[in-house]
Amino acid sequence: MRILIVNVNTTASMTDTIRAQAAAYASPGVEIVGLTPSFGPESVEGNFESYLAAVAVMDRVVRYDGPYDAVIQAGYGEHGREGLQELLDVPVVDITEAAAQVAMLIGRTYSVVTTLDRAIPQIEDRLRLAGLIDRCASIRASGLSVLELEGDLGRAVDAIVAEARKAVVDDRAEVICLGCGGMANLGREITAATGVPVVDGVAAAVALAEGLVRLGLTTSKVRTYATPRPKTVTGWPIGSGSPYAASVTEPHGEPRPR
Amino acid sequence: MRILIVNVNTTASMTDTIRAQAAAYASPGVEIVGLTPSFGPESVEGNFESYLAAVAVMDRVVRYDGPYDAVIQAGYGEHGREGLQELLDVPVVDITEAAAQVAMLIGRTYSVVTTLDRAIPQIEDRLRLAGLIDRCASIRASGLSVLELEGDLGRAVDAIVAEARKAVVDDRAEVICLGCGGMANLGREITAATGVPVVDGVAAAVALAEGLVRLGLTTSKVRTYATPRPKTVTGWPIGSGSPYAASVTEPHGEPRPR
Amino acid sequence: MRILIVNVNTTASMTDTIRAQAAAYASPGVEIVGLTPSFGPESVEGNFESYLAAVAVMDRVVRYDGPYDAVIQAGYGEHGREGLQELLDVPVVDITEAAAQVAMLIGRTYSVVTTLDRAIPQIEDRLRLAGLIDRCASIRASGLSVLELEGDLGRAVDAIVAEARKAVVDDRAEVICLGCGGMANLGREITAATGVPVVDGVAAAVALAEGLVRLGLTTSKVRTYATPRPKTVTGWPIGSGSPYAASVTEPHGEPRPR
Amino acid sequence: MRILIVNVNTTASMTDTIRAQAAAYASPGVEIVGLTPSFGPESVEGNFESYLAAVAVMDRVVRYDGPYDAVIQAGYGEHGREGLQELLDVPVVDITEAAAQVAMLIGRTYSVVTTLDRAIPQIEDRLRLAGLIDRCASIRASGLSVLELEGDLGRAVDAIVAEARKAVVDDRAEVICLGCGGMANLGREITAATGVPVVDGVAAAVALAEGLVRLGLTTSKVRTYATPRPKTVTGWPIGSGSPYAASVTEPHGEPRPR
Amino acid sequence: MRILIVNVNTTASMTDTIRAQAAAYASPGVEIVGLTPSFGPESVEGNFESYLAAVAVMDRVVRYDGPYDAVIQAGYGEHGREGLQELLDVPVVDITEAAAQVAMLIGRTYSVVTTLDRAIPQIEDRLRLAGLIDRCASIRASGLSVLELEGDLGRAVDAIVAEARKAVVDDRAEVICLGCGGMANLGREITAATGVPVVDGVAAAVALAEGLVRLGLTTSKVRTYATPRPKTVTGWPIGSGSPYAASVTEPHGEPRPR
Amino acid sequence: MRILIVNVNTTASMTDTIRAQAAAYASPGVEIVGLTPSFGPESVEGNFESYLAAVAVMDRVVRYDGPYDAVIQAGYGEHGREGLQELLDVPVVDITEAAAQVAMLIGRTYSVVTTLDRAIPQIEDRLRLAGLIDRCASIRASGLSVLELEGDLGRAVDAIVAEARKAVVDDRAEVICLGCGGMANLGREITAATGVPVVDGVAAAVALAEGLVRLGLTTSKVRTYATPRPKTVTGWPIGSGSPYAASVTEPHGEPRPR
Repeated sequence: MRILIVNVNTTASMTDTIRAQAAAYASPGVEIVGLTPSFGPESVEGNFESYLAAVAVMDRVVRYDGPYDAVIQAGYGEHGREGLQELLDVPVVDITEAAAQVAMLIGRTYSVVTTLDRAIPQIEDRLRLAGLIDRCASIRASGLSVLELEGDLGRAVDAIVAEARKAVVDDRAEVICLGCGGMANLGREITAATGVPVVDGVAAAVALAEGLVRLGLTTSKVRTYATPRPKTVTGWPIGSGSPYAASVTEPHGEPRPR
Repeated sequence: MRILIVNVNTTASMTDTIRAQAAAYASPGVEIVGLTPSFGPESVEGNFESYLAAVAVMDRVVRYDGPYDAVIQAGYGEHGREGLQELLDVPVVDITEAAAQVAMLIGRTYSVVTTLDRAIPQIEDRLRLAGLIDRCASIRASGLSVLELEGDLGRAVDAIVAEARKAVVDDRAEVICLGCGGMANLGREITAATGVPVVDGVAAAVALAEGLVRLGLTTSKVRTYATPRPKTVTGWPIGSGSPYAASVTEPHGEPRPR
Repeated sequence: MRILIVNVNTTASMTDTIRAQAAAYASPGVEIVGLTPSFGPESVEGNFESYLAAVAVMDRVVRYDGPYDAVIQAGYGEHGREGLQELLDVPVVDITEAAAQVAMLIGRTYSVVTTLDRAIPQIEDRLRLAGLIDRCASIRASGLSVLELEGDLGRAVDAIVAEARKAVVDDRAEVICLGCGGMANLGREITAATGVPVVDGVAAAVALAEGLVRLGLTTSKVRTYATPRPKTVTGWPIGSGSPYAASVTEPHGEPRPR
Repeated sequence: MRILIVNVNTTASMTDTIRAQAAAYASPGVEIVGLTPSFGPESVEGNFESYLAAVAVMDRVVRYDGPYDAVIQAGYGEHGREGLQELLDVPVVDITEAAAQVAMLIGRTYSVVTTLDRAIPQIEDRLRLAGLIDRCASIRASGLSVLELEGDLGRAVDAIVAEARKAVVDDRAEVICLGCGGMANLGREITAATGVPVVDGVAAAVALAEGLVRLGLTTSKVRTYATPRPKTVTGWPIGSGSPYAASVTEPHGEPRPR
Repeated sequence: MRILIVNVNTTASMTDTIRAQAAAYASPGVEIVGLTPSFGPESVEGNFESYLAAVAVMDRVVRYDGPYDAVIQAGYGEHGREGLQELLDVPVVDITEAAAQVAMLIGRTYSVVTTLDRAIPQIEDRLRLAGLIDRCASIRASGLSVLELEGDLGRAVDAIVAEARKAVVDDRAEVICLGCGGMANLGREITAATGVPVVDGVAAAVALAEGLVRLGLTTSKVRTYATPRPKTVTGWPIGSGSPYAASVTEPHGEPRPR
Repeated sequence: MRILIVNVNTTASMTDTIRAQAAAYASPGVEIVGLTPSFGPESVEGNFESYLAAVAVMDRVVRYDGPYDAVIQAGYGEHGREGLQELLDVPVVDITEAAAQVAMLIGRTYSVVTTLDRAIPQIEDRLRLAGLIDRCASIRASGLSVLELEGDLGRAVDAIVAEARKAVVDDRAEVICLGCGGMANLGREITAATGVPVVDGVAAAVALAEGLVRLGLTTSKVRTYATPRPKTVTGWPIGSGSPYAASVTEPHGEPRPR
């Protein structure tokens, strides 16, 4: 079984972290392939960046050559999952939704602790549209940006633990979801500090994606996620390797010659 | 990994079917143990029977001797999951909720096709309390009782397919959940007739239970599912083997000597 | 008119308190009969105990010999009312719902003040399923267990008044519902401290049950609360006096000879 | 105990019917007084008429001289209950809400069958604001106006039964509420035709009003229903007997001399 | 284009303020006519007063002689808009709803800052019925009455700014709606203090009313807002100039001779 | 005042239609500029296309040189409005939301009639996230694609009228919103056939955008729509004229030389 896990930003080191986290939870015999978009923001914080990332993720996946069994979109609260589901037949799992689903299996309520305050509305919207908001006790921000988080994990832990504690005590959360791909390794410390289980979205998505593949289930194509109708789409795909994209800079390398 | 799957009624043949269905979807190395309650109704249809089954299921699980890693409650729309979560540390997965979660990963909406009309309100309540009702397009009844379903599968398929079709066309469901343990093997025929994926709750629960165990997650004990406080509980456990239950008839056998 | 009021736990002194409270509010000519389950927990706090109590309550009522016109289930936030409604033709009133209904007639919003924190989710669920949650401003816990409440009423009043005040000021409640059978006599003191009316569930349930009987109304049997279908139910009833229950200890007395 | 029941329109014969219906369900020793507004529409159908009726009802009640223990507003889906609650200390019960509450005690869902299609949105709004809409399966109109209903009860029964049947079968209602004061005597026939209990709002309101009085409860004055602040209110009261209202015609009689 | 703006209370100076505010935002060529009810309270705070104002507003508008293109009801959270919509063909815009709509165009969430605490439930109800509550972050009261606000604007600003700040910081509002006609000129100061846009309901209503007129749209008459059916309405209209209203005192003047 | 109206697809003739419709409703002195994205689908039907269009719309607007006062996004149910709001200071109005807001001012409920069945979920999601779903009676599809609609308006009218009628009669809609930019001129015929007002999203958006500009209001930048943080965004902007986009074909013309 091969699962693609797509980072939503162009920071390759973050792709590596995410891929490693996914691989750590994959069953034996499951190969995890990490993909980095070839355009878009270095970190995704806000709607403009998220919409751009949504397209960059779709672009990256459709330009992937080999076979695969499922795709994980590794951005917390980001746009785009529905587009991937239209383009692909294999299951697509979003880490925001995966974390929420897993949390709801082990507690009555969950809270999300994320990076910046501005991420909160987007996460709320994604959970609402996915039908997973009812048991969400709160979404809280640590105040650290995605890249700060990456840079100074010690400080990150303190800020995240502080919000997680408030979620458990004030908002009555029974499970904490880590609302950023970069928070993957903090679970143990947060559980120690709060006494509640902590769900990492990447790990949760791996478990669910594997499960869907084993159950032999694929995305319903009957209506919302039907394959796009044949029509002229100018300038697609966008990314490097596409005839439309001569000058797009590869995320970590030279501009690709055409 | 060992997973207990508990039938909610006292019909041992149904336990066998459910266990086999679970085993068919279990990963290599996962052992599935089927349990049958020692008291309660031969099939569960309605609240009185469901409450009784909830207690009988808890009773059966607490009297199980060996180690295990997760428990699946294999009744569609039945009471009791929260009680098991209090009594146990390992994850507890209800097939009603498992089916809905898996369905939401592969379609925007899902419908449940169940047995009798009177099961509909209970299923709705369970989905609502689990926070999984938002994407439920409808819950439809085939009109066949649990035992009729068991007895004449051919007729069952027709009735279930008819309701599934209405769910897809009229209610805009994109996935069908089979709302009864006994419907486990009908997925292929219903997909053929409706064009949408079909989720069996038992199979879905196995995938989710395995996933939780692999993620190392257990039920949050911080509030709702905290272990019961120590106190006098008269007449518990109830089932055979308990000092309080000399005369309880084993579901398929002799009264147990004490 | 005869109304049965069933305690949900096995503590007979609590049955006496509840029965007296009910009788104090009953109209002339209305007889109140108090019933104590013959098995189950000495106080009900949590889902395991509540499911067990649900069955014990049904068991106790079906083993009651005489005629009666209505039944009150006197547990706050407990499971089981729907099962009783299936088994009986006469009206069944749950004190959680009765208190909420009466509160909604005299104020725009109400809060419930209950015993332990872990009772909150159950009360919320019951109010939600009963369709009475929209005007619930909050559910607050005094932190005292059912039995502590019984033991030291002075301390209880302080704790309950403190939470009631927060409900009125912070949560904007306009009525307080006392969320435990044992709080029956505290109304006056809480009203004095908060300036809002206080509704006791037992008293409210007596008023509503009497009203239903006078209106000549009984539970609708058309679907959800239809009489259980005839089938083999092993080991039912469970309680003393049942052939299945030789060794079940009576809650306050000797094992019953058979 | 004396309960005022206020008709919302100026048709005195309808006041008589309503008063008689209320008296038929009142306990021994409870006096029912019927009041008719001194201005406003002869029947209330729509928002303009309903707002006018709201004021006319308040006007009529504040001009009532004697003592009383509770007030029933006998208009289905009409405005005004909150205003009465501010002006009075005694309990105020609206028949729309009373019917819904009683219905929810004896069935999982209820439908309202009312007169004209245009009444439906108002009834829906009143139930929503009262926090009683969750268990409302549907609101259906017979197509007969209030006065047609009054005039030809035979034809009315047929039209109402037809809608009640659709409510039970198509909308899954388990109880029918009669959505017009004038439908008071049709309960038996509708139950015979549909097999579900039928709740008349006037009777339900009597039961609840009596209950509130017996419980010693009055409207919370802490916020929403606080007594109006002292200030200049020009032209109030409006009705006959008021110095501001010399020429207002009494609903059935001569202009009142001043 | 002529737009009538109707004050909900009888204080003519407040009508003048409101009319001036509306005129300041009207497009060139749009005439704003201010109307004051001829009966009712000097300021509207609570349901009794609001129902009376609803009728007084309808009364004032139907007694207006000239042609007009739209009507604005200038009371925050008051009853009556639906009645006006039945009586008129031209568009009717309520300032509560206008402010919310405009706020939702420029921010994800909005809060309302109003006068007295008792106004909060009414505003909430109006927003809920108008289908505009989902993006309402909070409704907060400054604690100043309508007339105090009118009298001491300096003190008012401080109180309103304090609540607006809490709305932005604690309730996560992104826009503030000024919840009282008399707050019309405070926008700039509140924006300066909070950094978020401030919407005045009167100005918003002018923009929306003008827009509706330019789009050539009028109220749908198909059901809810259909013209009232012809019938006897005793004592209507009520206000001065009506044959039924000899003694009604004009709000600022002599009793009108008949 | 200059308002940009951006088509979401690359079909320039559709931009012309939309621009003309907008200009027909603009006030004197308001200039309407139509923009066509330089990449993306020829018509937008589904999530993949919609996400791509969201980015293409943002790309086209940021590459527009002159000053402007507001932007209208002229796609029904499409992604992207939030991104534009982050990038710009001037108001951004989406036609889906504009139509719903205007409809709610003139009727209690509205239905949307759109093109293909697969558009329904997206429109529903957009309305839900905008907080405008509560008064939506239904969203119905005519079954015609965007381009078929463009090609054969006669046939389109019939199909749209048929669905509009069902919306009014079966779903109780009181206003119809035309759910596609290309339906702009059908309002009169549909009103004639159904008796209810018809709202065109483009016209509605012009009215609201003008109103916002006149009120001097701009998007709140306090949280959700804050300007994107400074960071490396690879390959942005994408469209022609951008150094990253040499080979992107202009929608109607030659590849742009660089």
